[in-house]
Amino acid sequence: MDYLFKMKTEISTKFKKLQDQICLGLEKINTSSKFSEDLWERPGGGGGRSRTLAKGKVIQKGGVNFSEVSGPTPKSLLKSLVLPPSDFYATGVSIVIHPVNPWVPIIHMNIRYFEMSDGTYWFGGGIDLTPHYVIESDAIFFHKQLKEICDQYDSGYYAQFKKWADDYFFIKHRNETRGIGGIFFDRLSSQEANEKEQLWQFILNLGNGFLPIYTELISRNRDRPFTIEQQDWQYLRRGRYVEFNLVLDKGTKFGLDTDGRTESILMSLPPFASWEYNHQPEKESPEARTLAYLVKDIDWINND
Amino acid sequence: MDYLFKMKTEISTKFKKLQDQICLGLEKINTSSKFSEDLWERPGGGGGRSRTLAKGKVIQKGGVNFSEVSGPTPKSLLKSLVLPPSDFYATGVSIVIHPVNPWVPIIHMNIRYFEMSDGTYWFGGGIDLTPHYVIESDAIFFHKQLKEICDQYDSGYYAQFKKWADDYFFIKHRNETRGIGGIFFDRLSSQEANEKEQLWQFILNLGNGFLPIYTELISRNRDRPFTIEQQDWQYLRRGRYVEFNLVLDKGTKFGLDTDGRTESILMSLPPFASWEYNHQPEKESPEARTLAYLVKDIDWINND
Repeated sequence: MDYLFKMKTEISTKFKKLQDQICLGLEKINTSSKFSEDLWERPGGGGGRSRTLAKGKVIQKGGVNFSEVSGPTPKSLLKSLVLPPSDFYATGVSIVIHPVNPWVPIIHMNIRYFEMSDGTYWFGGGIDLTPHYVIESDAIFFHKQLKEICDQYDSGYYAQFKKWADDYFFIKHRNETRGIGGIFFDRLSSQEANEKEQLWQFILNLGNGFLPIYTELISRNRDRPFTIEQQDWQYLRRGRYVEFNLVLDKGTKFGLDTDGRTESILMSLPPFASWEYNHQPEKESPEARTLAYLVKDIDWINND
Repeated sequence: MDYLFKMKTEISTKFKKLQDQICLGLEKINTSSKFSEDLWERPGGGGGRSRTLAKGKVIQKGGVNFSEVSGPTPKSLLKSLVLPPSDFYATGVSIVIHPVNPWVPIIHMNIRYFEMSDGTYWFGGGIDLTPHYVIESDAIFFHKQLKEICDQYDSGYYAQFKKWADDYFFIKHRNETRGIGGIFFDRLSSQEANEKEQLWQFILNLGNGFLPIYTELISRNRDRPFTIEQQDWQYLRRGRYVEFNLVLDKGTKFGLDTDGRTESILMSLPPFASWEYNHQPEKESPEARTLAYLVKDIDWINND
């Protein structure tokens, strides 16, 4: 228990530090506005630090949230795992950034740690990208960076977690993926103490990868000029992002169903999303080319 | 069966006529643009006439849909009713209008008829209003009109169906109603042939009530000036409309889960919806007064 307690403290401490670093880094790129912090407490135990930014020069709306909550394990989870009542502890960092410029992609990261008083624990999370316009070289860069992080820990991680992201971020009713995916994983666990440490190092490294990856994607595209029509397209793509998050995302559903903190759960939603009846981009247009990329199982690594 | 067949034909014919009349009426008010029609067929049987209008002077985005579908009854429904396999037939008119001017409310109507080959049938539907700003006199007018239609058929309908709407259009995770409600009902049925005719007349009258009611609400408010801040508020309210429809609306969920026609199901979604982290209107502002009205069980009839 002593070891576990130490681990918990280390994880939440490093998660908070990571939140600090990412906010600082994004403020530096954004230049025009800073994150506001909203501290909140969870009635059942624990709380969080929600940090949000809006109407920036680069970031139109973004959230970088830390939370650390605990209490009796939700009954639905105990039931699905066939476990007796216990207490749980969960901590994580969650990020969604909606940029001003349609050439800059939306990014999402979530890394989290969960444990129960019976010793069961797991890590979950991932990073994925939703470009309004898919730029091949950016997509290749993004996936290569993720593969590099994965490969330091397990040569099978990238392939496995990339597929997991493709399957998870799929909008069935649109027959398209939310974006170009990335990596996604859940319930990473091991009985060996040193392997737990390995998993934790992987999670932390992934978290540390966020800022350099997104900074690069922003730098490449933030100053590209765009038209009002391209912005309209950005708003339509944000509409799809909303559809995924509200209809399909399991975390959102779980949060809303279990009386989670609505403002923190829905901080992922964009400013100015739009819907048009049966919008079809012109053939061979950049918009149509983007749609053609919104399919599963594209191999971005061996593709250039 | 002959009687049933006649009834089916009458219902779908009148529904189509109603769609025609409502589209014509709305085009007359909108003046600047007309509905486009999209005819579609359902792979399993039947099809529909989706009519949509966008970027009008009064209506920013609107849909007036008719559908008439049939085929094997969905298994989930048979299971919930504990019935053997059968065929079903369903027809309905569905409307959602998002106006340009934030003083004009969003309106939604749905009237539908459903039957199965074993003779089981029901009517469902309702009309409800989602003002961006609640205007008391408009809310009273709206509810009085609905009560008048209800009272012609059953003195208990309005109270019962008004409560049903309050309960149905409730956004639990926001602890607010979607708008000021209206009436909502489902599975209205009777074993008596003449009572079926009565129910049908009620449905048809409700459908016929839509145009005069909404025309009045538009006429009262379409020319009221509004500021950019009021438009921002309109976009935020549209965000809540999206949340209800994608997270909670049973029809939307059923449609998406059963591979319904996505574009017709999601025609309800607005142009330019927006989300802001933890937006709180100023105390005593018109926005705050509107939020105070978004609660269940307001008696609009005995309130003036």
